[in-house]
Amino acid sequence: MKVGVFDSGIGGLSVVKSLLEHQLFEEIIYYGDTARVPYGVKDKNTILRYSLDALEFFKNFDIDLLIVACNTVSAYALEEMREAAPFEVVGVVEAGALACKNAMNNTQSNILILGTKATVNSKAYENLLSSYAYENVSALATSLFVPIVEEELYESEVLQSTMRHYFKDIQTPDAIILGCTHFPLISAQISAYFDDKSKLIHSGEAIVEYLESKIKFAKKFPEPKLKFFASENPDALKAVAKKWLNL
Amino acid sequence: MKVGVFDSGIGGLSVVKSLLEHQLFEEIIYYGDTARVPYGVKDKNTILRYSLDALEFFKNFDIDLLIVACNTVSAYALEEMREAAPFEVVGVVEAGALACKNAMNNTQSNILILGTKATVNSKAYENLLSSYAYENVSALATSLFVPIVEEELYESEVLQSTMRHYFKDIQTPDAIILGCTHFPLISAQISAYFDDKSKLIHSGEAIVEYLESKIKFAKKFPEPKLKFFASENPDALKAVAKKWLNL
Repeated sequence: MKVGVFDSGIGGLSVVKSLLEHQLFEEIIYYGDTARVPYGVKDKNTILRYSLDALEFFKNFDIDLLIVACNTVSAYALEEMREAAPFEVVGVVEAGALACKNAMNNTQSNILILGTKATVNSKAYENLLSSYAYENVSALATSLFVPIVEEELYESEVLQSTMRHYFKDIQTPDAIILGCTHFPLISAQISAYFDDKSKLIHSGEAIVEYLESKIKFAKKFPEPKLKFFASENPDALKAVAKKWLNL
Repeated sequence: MKVGVFDSGIGGLSVVKSLLEHQLFEEIIYYGDTARVPYGVKDKNTILRYSLDALEFFKNFDIDLLIVACNTVSAYALEEMREAAPFEVVGVVEAGALACKNAMNNTQSNILILGTKATVNSKAYENLLSSYAYENVSALATSLFVPIVEEELYESEVLQSTMRHYFKDIQTPDAIILGCTHFPLISAQISAYFDDKSKLIHSGEAIVEYLESKIKFAKKFPEPKLKFFASENPDALKAVAKKWLNL
């Protein structure tokens, strides 16, 4: 199978990392809309328009499935993309909500969603978790985590004080959904803040779990073909991909 | 006179604030490219393309002068805009560098430029200051200040720890150029960090000083016509304008 992976920027490479670890696909085509990143601060109509542009891009390739690795796009544009696409489309929000449900048996579990402003405002995760009967769900827009990851301030007082700012009124959650593809890079620090007592839900792992539950993968592909595209500065994206994915 | 003010987003309203305080213009037309903000992380070709798009927008109005309130655009696209424009174009970088020169008599003064990554990489301020014979100039990309201002974390440990991170190896400067239109909103905190010993250069005030040195303004306009446009969500921009400009 040939899969497309779409993100507004480079963050979706964390989903590609999971796909590679599980050796699910013969060919992976990644497209980051780096000229227009970030989507998380834009309004619904703009996000929709950009998402349909990306769909047109993927129509150039003979893919069987498109993974929307961007939480913001998954929250706002997934239905419209599905209607317009000649291939299957899955998003990290439905996969993440389902992974959370599978990890938490008790519908009284205390679940915290972290995301960009647009993802949090969409209430997409909450609506799905509510349909699974979870009642104890809250969401926080932790926008500063994005530039902190981009500046690689993993081990910094800046990250620590930013977590204290965002989490000051938060009880230790049973599960934390990392609702932005940048956040897995600071998952150790977020987990440690809550004394490693919370189950962290990671988009890449959630997508793999979701696909394995839906599709019968007959064989493994230890060395898939990889193609990377970007709407701006593809060399920078390829450099990050090399580093993150150990290529 | 009728003036246009262009910025990638809402930050340029701090320049409009200075124009209003000094009552220079009969009519002010503001355009923020909010659908494609921020420019500071994009590459030169994209910044150039977006800037020329904005020029086309302003051609719809009979303006006499365009102020480029965005440091990134001023650093990368000013010459190209000037060549293509049927009106005068001035940018905050040349105005800021000149204001710095006028404030600092001694060319040995220690000058610190703060900006986005794109503005700092352009070396636009450094090149101008170097042409004025200043030798003791350094620049810092303080990207995290942008979301800190957008989240209004003015009085926060997050801002304090971020300043400690960026400024840890910095000697108290004689002058600090606030090379991003967001930064005037945290100028009191930046000034206090250096015990109020540095002269801060603010783009809006620098533009006013620059224009008053070039143009003979015959009369004052205490109640100019104001028009605000945005490429996305103009109502949000108008709401911020109302708040910042006390309209």
